[in-house]
Amino acid sequence: MNGAHALMQTLADAGVEVCFTNPGTSEMHFVAALDAEPRMRAVLALFEGVATGAADGYARMAGKPAATLLHLGCGLGNGLANLHNARKGKVPIVNIVGDHATTHTRYDAQLQSDIETVARNVSPGFVRTSQSTAALGQDAVDAIAAARGLPGQVATLILPADVSWGEGGQPCPPPPAPAPQPADDASVQAIAQAIRSGEAALLLGGQALREGGLMAAARIAAHTGAHLFAECFPTRMQRGAGLPAVERIAYLAELAGVQLARFKHLILVDAKSPVSFFAYPGKPSDLVPEGCSVHTLAAPDQDAAASLEKLAAALGAQATAPRLQAAQRPERPRGPLTAPKVCKAVGHLLPENAIVIDESITSGLMLGVMTQGAPRHDLITLTGGAIGQGLPGAVGAAIACPDRPVIALIGDGSAMYTIQALWSMARENLNVTAIIFNNASYSVLNVELERVGAGEGGPKARAQLDLQGPVLNFAQLAQGLGVHAVRASTAEDFCQALEYALAQSGPHLIEALVPESLGGAKRKVLPWMLRAIPSLPPAVAQAIRRKIAP
Amino acid sequence: MNGAHALMQTLADAGVEVCFTNPGTSEMHFVAALDAEPRMRAVLALFEGVATGAADGYARMAGKPAATLLHLGCGLGNGLANLHNARKGKVPIVNIVGDHATTHTRYDAQLQSDIETVARNVSPGFVRTSQSTAALGQDAVDAIAAARGLPGQVATLILPADVSWGEGGQPCPPPPAPAPQPADDASVQAIAQAIRSGEAALLLGGQALREGGLMAAARIAAHTGAHLFAECFPTRMQRGAGLPAVERIAYLAELAGVQLARFKHLILVDAKSPVSFFAYPGKPSDLVPEGCSVHTLAAPDQDAAASLEKLAAALGAQATAPRLQAAQRPERPRGPLTAPKVCKAVGHLLPENAIVIDESITSGLMLGVMTQGAPRHDLITLTGGAIGQGLPGAVGAAIACPDRPVIALIGDGSAMYTIQALWSMARENLNVTAIIFNNASYSVLNVELERVGAGEGGPKARAQLDLQGPVLNFAQLAQGLGVHAVRASTAEDFCQALEYALAQSGPHLIEALVPESLGGAKRKVLPWMLRAIPSLPPAVAQAIRRKIAP
Repeated sequence: MNGAHALMQTLADAGVEVCFTNPGTSEMHFVAALDAEPRMRAVLALFEGVATGAADGYARMAGKPAATLLHLGCGLGNGLANLHNARKGKVPIVNIVGDHATTHTRYDAQLQSDIETVARNVSPGFVRTSQSTAALGQDAVDAIAAARGLPGQVATLILPADVSWGEGGQPCPPPPAPAPQPADDASVQAIAQAIRSGEAALLLGGQALREGGLMAAARIAAHTGAHLFAECFPTRMQRGAGLPAVERIAYLAELAGVQLARFKHLILVDAKSPVSFFAYPGKPSDLVPEGCSVHTLAAPDQDAAASLEKLAAALGAQATAPRLQAAQRPERPRGPLTAPKVCKAVGHLLPENAIVIDESITSGLMLGVMTQGAPRHDLITLTGGAIGQGLPGAVGAAIACPDRPVIALIGDGSAMYTIQALWSMARENLNVTAIIFNNASYSVLNVELERVGAGEGGPKARAQLDLQGPVLNFAQLAQGLGVHAVRASTAEDFCQALEYALAQSGPHLIEALVPESLGGAKRKVLPWMLRAIPSLPPAVAQAIRRKIAP
Repeated sequence: MNGAHALMQTLADAGVEVCFTNPGTSEMHFVAALDAEPRMRAVLALFEGVATGAADGYARMAGKPAATLLHLGCGLGNGLANLHNARKGKVPIVNIVGDHATTHTRYDAQLQSDIETVARNVSPGFVRTSQSTAALGQDAVDAIAAARGLPGQVATLILPADVSWGEGGQPCPPPPAPAPQPADDASVQAIAQAIRSGEAALLLGGQALREGGLMAAARIAAHTGAHLFAECFPTRMQRGAGLPAVERIAYLAELAGVQLARFKHLILVDAKSPVSFFAYPGKPSDLVPEGCSVHTLAAPDQDAAASLEKLAAALGAQATAPRLQAAQRPERPRGPLTAPKVCKAVGHLLPENAIVIDESITSGLMLGVMTQGAPRHDLITLTGGAIGQGLPGAVGAAIACPDRPVIALIGDGSAMYTIQALWSMARENLNVTAIIFNNASYSVLNVELERVGAGEGGPKARAQLDLQGPVLNFAQLAQGLGVHAVRASTAEDFCQALEYALAQSGPHLIEALVPESLGGAKRKVLPWMLRAIPSLPPAVAQAIRRKIAP
């Protein structure tokens, strides 16, 4: 058995059953081995960023890793941004990067480069170049074990061509499943005491945003008055009618500061202590208010839900009824289309058990509010800030969950990084509705230009932030990639297109032509953000209003 | 003066006058500084691979570096493949990568990653994170000096946001121009002696493929009978009527071995000793035949043209008339379109002083023959094997040479890595004619699957190598990106479209619908390659025929 076949069988035995590929010559033996392993599905991408983003989206929904197949250092480079998003989201991926034969490396041929140095950026915990066909099976097991946890990560296995084609490969049995432990009793007791002292908030992230963790946290909140936050960009968050409503930390540091201002205790549950996304001159990066103590209930390598259950028990909240989100939908929007109306239409029409992928940046500010009481759904967000995640993530999510509708809301700027994902949706006939907000602008950068104190910007600067001259036509792009698409500039047309897309199988793209609503002015942004944050206590809302008054 | 302004002025003072950008928040002060420096042109790309590929194409034609502006580690990752091509082509680029403020790094925010480790892959000679606003001007000078030579390279300057926005910036004067030296007398004499002993070939690369080097090499060839080869994938090669015709080393190692078989001396002139592109089981990677001595006349850090002039003088060939390519064009092709007919049409219609960018992989095999006697032109090829170079390269070449027509021939698979380049062509109204060969296949991989001994491949394997289900529509993609486009499936339509495109200003895309001609069979490829190699001695042609006989 050659190395490629041994690797393929080892992957499948461990439950790695999908491989997102963009192969080249050095990966041909792996490709040839696909037909010998019926458990392995191979999904071709036209660009490596699609393959890696799909592996990310798949694992977020499947709860187990997929493999990638990338072509040397350059293929890894092309896939790096979405592997970064996976790394930040602690998402397991078995990242397989083909390399030249070990005997070829010293000739420094055209495609030769130092793969390991690139891989360390996204795989600090596991980068290994397999050194022999005999060792490849065990290398694969070690990569799978590293990828799966604790916590999940991107494990990069570099596969030289001659290790792949060599004979003497040995499939190896799967590694043991990871077994995360809950918080220890002392930590639970200390945190229970902090919560009892009042003015406490739980910041939920990672695994804590799934149903089990959410329900335990909501019982604690109902019993103690503790506030519930979700991290700003969750890997995967379950929400909607019948689940606890949890307020996300805002992207804008100014607003996050207001959200957090009143708390004396911040309890981290598989979440990172909140920091601003970027640094701004003269402003602190650490968002924890002065005088607030930060406690860690569960680190990412622990069992977040079990830790929350232990905490609920310690607080006597096991039997408390949690406050759950009531079912409610916004009305059907009417008139000229705007970004908030798109969000409203999604809330109005969201089907049961959907997967919502949000990479809509400024255009999706109202999405949270508008879908809060919609039927229960999973929300996937941009964990690492590297735009170009949404469309590939939709590919992976749809392959992980073929029976669930996937709705991806993407900004125009973001969509153009990995637009090639549409072709894979068409080829695999995936149930994805891609909604592109075309406002012809890197809208968030118009905000950021002022926020970093760089002024209004002259015409050359402004030209780096807009997407005009020509304006992109996403419907044409989608059709060129084999995906049915329409453009909508009224709410009526948009709703009709969304109903059609959700009723038909296969991928659809709706290009929402919307005005650039932010216009570069912070004073316009904050009130809008304010409305987007659900269930703020009146005092907090009042504080925000004072803060943003002109 | 803040750091960004000092950096901008330092760049412009050193003649870096174009910046290919895809900025984010951490680069906003650099963006804001653009309007203060009228000498700096900023060209926005929708994807970093376009920005870096454009910087590569620009420098190949302008003979000096452009700057890039990339957003943190993820932006660098997206730009890595085309920086790799630049590195392999020894092309100067001042690669500016924004980073978080130095005070923000320790908070490990969403976009935080280790940028330097990624940068080392493409900038082994110069990676520096600027540590202070006061030092930024000198850091920029050092980066420019490193980029410009000797030889050219990708110099990566990492620019933390607070270094950019901080006050106390000092523009610095330009570094001295590089002054490469010719080969020393002893080397020249030794090589002259080797050439006199007969059965010698010169392998020209890098700077040796410009007019001065080519003419000196052709005088040597005419005087001594030495054969002239060009490296397989030249950075930039001047060719056409009135220049010496130089035979390129073939991509297929089998064929390159035949090309080189009869030589006892191989003289490298700014070229690397030839090795196979990939390794193949049981085949040597080193293409130099046994018993052939390899001599280096000029390394990449030397003056190749001056070295060739010295060698010509040593051989008494200063006054020898070089053999020059006669003006001749293929006839206008007729009938159903095929890839060779596209090449024929390009040869038939190629305008004076064109820049030809070849990333057509298998479809362009006949391009060399068909354009050999066309009007003088520059040829740019895929130096590092990382596909996705051609369309971005065309952006940069057209900006470097606004008065010259740019014709980019691109395979369908390759085009999809950086299709976003079309938008930049439209926005800048560049005189680019992009010809996409749509054969609905990663055609070269069908060949490679068999060459690496992985067999014919089953249906799953084959599905990783074809681009069907759906077939891409590049004309629609181009229109969605704002570029005029047509599809052609006859030679007549193609010629008409090409004439139209060349007669109008601004970008045009012609989608050539061609059959997948290689069909996965080596026996079909080699005869085709054979025809593609010009002016082989009859004995060599005979040897190839024997080698590829069934």
